Amino acid sequence: MPVITIDLGTIEDKEKKGQLVQALTEAASTVTQIPADKFIVFIKEMERENIGVGGKLLSDILK
Amino acid sequence: MPVITIDLGTIEDKEKKGQLVQALTEAASTVTQIPADKFIVFIKEMERENIGVGGKLLSDILK
Amino acid sequence: MPVITIDLGTIEDKEKKGQLVQALTEAASTVTQIPADKFIVFIKEMERENIGVGGKLLSDILK
Amino acid sequence: MPVITIDLGTIEDKEKKGQLVQALTEAASTVTQIPADKFIVFIKEMERENIGVGGKLLSDILK
Amino acid sequence: MPVITIDLGTIEDKEKKGQLVQALTEAASTVTQIPADKFIVFIKEMERENIGVGGKLLSDILK
Amino acid sequence: MPVITIDLGTIEDKEKKGQLVQALTEAASTVTQIPADKFIVFIKEMERENIGVGGKLLSDILK
Repeated sequence: MPVITIDLGTIEDKEKKGQLVQALTEAASTVTQIPADKFIVFIKEMERENIGVGGKLLSDILK
Repeated sequence: MPVITIDLGTIEDKEKKGQLVQALTEAASTVTQIPADKFIVFIKEMERENIGVGGKLLSDILK
Repeated sequence: MPVITIDLGTIEDKEKKGQLVQALTEAASTVTQIPADKFIVFIKEMERENIGVGGKLLSDILK
Repeated sequence: MPVITIDLGTIEDKEKKGQLVQALTEAASTVTQIPADKFIVFIKEMERENIGVGGKLLSDILK
Repeated sequence: MPVITIDLGTIEDKEKKGQLVQALTEAASTVTQIPADKFIVFIKEMERENIGVGGKLLSDILK
Repeated sequence: MPVITIDLGTIEDKEKKGQLVQALTEAASTVTQIPADKFIVFIKEMERENIGVGGKLLSDILK
């Protein structure tokens, strides 16, 4: 029962979430040969003010 | 100082959160014999559109 | 499909791992009324030299 | 800078790890249109005696 | 590409988030001698009703 | 009770682990004004063959 967690910025387009879950599951299932129905995926969206890159907030970098 | 994290869908009834923290802490404390006051619990609620099971979003499965 | 993760020091007695998985699953299943067979538990053991409490390594505190 | 973490049992064949990192990165990059070189992947392998499914250790289920 | 994740209660003052990312990155970069621009920081804020300490919700302890 | 988790490659020099725990705790305590003795730090070391950057294993990039 593998669990895939993706931490990233917010995803506005909700259809992309379904595509992301499907793509990650298929990718991992194909390589590991563990059946796709065993996989759980968690999409963890974060605001840019909660992500730091190189010591700076993403919300400041992308201003 | 063990940390228990539970990732799951949203919990509407707020009393259940207190019960969940108490039950998980007691369960782990009893087995490990680490005192209950050393435990931290994080309840990580996620929307169904951020959880994938078997390559599909939970929000689509439970539609 | 909830996922419970417990981060703690190493567990020497392997029987305790089975007891821990069972106890955490039952506790969470009872409170949330999600069937026990939907739960995944990850036991993440760490050496004491990889755990810090109050700014000090647990391996130094418990010396 | 998205981070993908996969928690699963041990992977014996080391070539599969490279394939897994490549496949997960490509899958997520294609859907999100974030460049592949921004992605980090962590493969977190666990022994079967540290994974619980439905309240039982995977090491006991697969005995 | 190290990733630092901090799980804590909500941070009201948004300037503190920038300071936190900077301070954690500098601290870890100085000790590990890995360049600061390689670090990612995730600030994971949680409501007090989602944090348990010693078997009780933080929202009840701090009432 | 904040928890800081750092995911990175293996740290050979064990003294660095103590320094890392101290530095991260002080940095976060100073910014958040939460007392240092409330902080837990987990150092999660990973082999280079379990870390992917830009779709490639770190063990292959640094060969």
